[in-house]
Amino acid sequence: MSLLVVGSVALDTVETPAGKVTDVLGGSASFFATAASLFAPVRLVAVVGDDFRVEEQIGFLRARGVDLAGLQQRPGRTFRWVGRYGANLNEAHTLDTQLGVFADFAPELPEHFRHSKIVFLANIDPALQLRVLDQVAAPELVALDTMNFWIKGKRAELLQALARVHVATVNDGEARMLSGEHNLVKAARAVQRLGPRTVVIKRGEFGVLLFHEERVFAAPAFPLEDLRDPTGAGDSFAGGMMGYLARARDFGVTGLRRAIVVGCVLGSFAVEDFSLERTRLLTLGDVTKRYELYRELIGAGALQERLLDD
Amino acid sequence: MSLLVVGSVALDTVETPAGKVTDVLGGSASFFATAASLFAPVRLVAVVGDDFRVEEQIGFLRARGVDLAGLQQRPGRTFRWVGRYGANLNEAHTLDTQLGVFADFAPELPEHFRHSKIVFLANIDPALQLRVLDQVAAPELVALDTMNFWIKGKRAELLQALARVHVATVNDGEARMLSGEHNLVKAARAVQRLGPRTVVIKRGEFGVLLFHEERVFAAPAFPLEDLRDPTGAGDSFAGGMMGYLARARDFGVTGLRRAIVVGCVLGSFAVEDFSLERTRLLTLGDVTKRYELYRELIGAGALQERLLDD
Repeated sequence: MSLLVVGSVALDTVETPAGKVTDVLGGSASFFATAASLFAPVRLVAVVGDDFRVEEQIGFLRARGVDLAGLQQRPGRTFRWVGRYGANLNEAHTLDTQLGVFADFAPELPEHFRHSKIVFLANIDPALQLRVLDQVAAPELVALDTMNFWIKGKRAELLQALARVHVATVNDGEARMLSGEHNLVKAARAVQRLGPRTVVIKRGEFGVLLFHEERVFAAPAFPLEDLRDPTGAGDSFAGGMMGYLARARDFGVTGLRRAIVVGCVLGSFAVEDFSLERTRLLTLGDVTKRYELYRELIGAGALQERLLDD
Repeated sequence: MSLLVVGSVALDTVETPAGKVTDVLGGSASFFATAASLFAPVRLVAVVGDDFRVEEQIGFLRARGVDLAGLQQRPGRTFRWVGRYGANLNEAHTLDTQLGVFADFAPELPEHFRHSKIVFLANIDPALQLRVLDQVAAPELVALDTMNFWIKGKRAELLQALARVHVATVNDGEARMLSGEHNLVKAARAVQRLGPRTVVIKRGEFGVLLFHEERVFAAPAFPLEDLRDPTGAGDSFAGGMMGYLARARDFGVTGLRRAIVVGCVLGSFAVEDFSLERTRLLTLGDVTKRYELYRELIGAGALQERLLDD
């Protein structure tokens, strides 16, 4: 099934205990599309400046079946983010953000994008998320990501957008801020009441909680010995999840659970190197191998039997 | 199999957002024995003061098959702990600790305790943990719990004790302090090199990581909507884990994984009420019911199949 993503394509400068990179490819749409395109054809909507060398920097996505017809190039500078991580890789310190051409981003969907069946609204202004939704004819599954900045600053628009989506992906702090509930179960239930029947709470190295209708699914993160750069982990997770859903076409509880695990697998690859260095080289074989390790990790086999024989 | 625990029996005064209790039964050995006795006969070694009403306060354990012959009663006051939790129930604020008779605790094992096959050394001075180990003839499985206080203050004795146990249970901060490694996988591997072939890292609401020989198992915590008091969650977890192992007599990877899940189940019950109010009423039926919910939570069923059909 066709999978549309709208988000950012950025140039990141990132320092972690493992090293430093300057002006490397980043942005939510880049991470998402790289992960998702392992599973399904992806349509990308974003904007870059005239300082961005499209073919050189993002051309590899075409070879992965990503349609870049929705990537606008405008006069001005590409969105830039400068960040640093300390030993606690769960927490990014933003040193600088330069919106550049992203400040005036007005997503326009090419005609053939308007019939996309699955849509991922990455973390951008909820007014723009609504603008994109207005241009899609009859989506079957829409997921939305957001952040504290919009929860505080554009609450009304965000609530409008949430009312129109099936899935919301947030981290624990965002779920708490959005709902006013500290307890995560209560917070997720409150977010569900705002619209999405499915709420995915991302907890970084602590894994993911999936609230789907009445049910809860907990997926631990894949424990890694060597993490180089957490940037893009959440969007790679979302790309794995939505890409798998687009391929499996099962939006029920089983499909969602497996999609969450695929997301965890993609997130675990993403943090093994800077930028998209690891995920751009991934094959489906790599993914299924780690999926098997993941099943082993959560002991799916060991827990098959009844607890007590007597 | 016979299961021996040495630890504290205490009187706790605890305040949480859900309420306050004064001088209620607490202590690592109490929580452990209450949980473990659901599965196996337990032998308890601890000390209380002459202000402690043994029959009234801890007599219920006898009915659960706990042998209290190792519970000393000495002149003086029982160990008291006063603590408070804020909205973040992961973090206890200790307001007061009065060791009382615990300051001079010198565990003496009754003759019939000395042939116990499974031993849990709860979080006490590692010199005392060693003293207990010296009194057990031929244990088949020994687990040890500890804390930052001993890692800093009694490192030499703790290393001696660790070299003699099969299982270490620590939280993430303790694993990091003990090993000097920030990454939890590296930290666990380093703790394994100190002796225990099995390292259990407890992460509170984020669940548990089990490192057994070369393998890793991740168990999320059971998400709860109403937590009243986290005190004793770790010792209830350990009680469930060790009790299950004593009953199942499988110390291999499958037995350990199921034991970890039983531990998570017991921990989840423990925090639903103050002191031992919830766990003391538990039946095996309650446990197996929540174990089934737990299997559903981690999607053991949904992940049975191959990821991709093609």
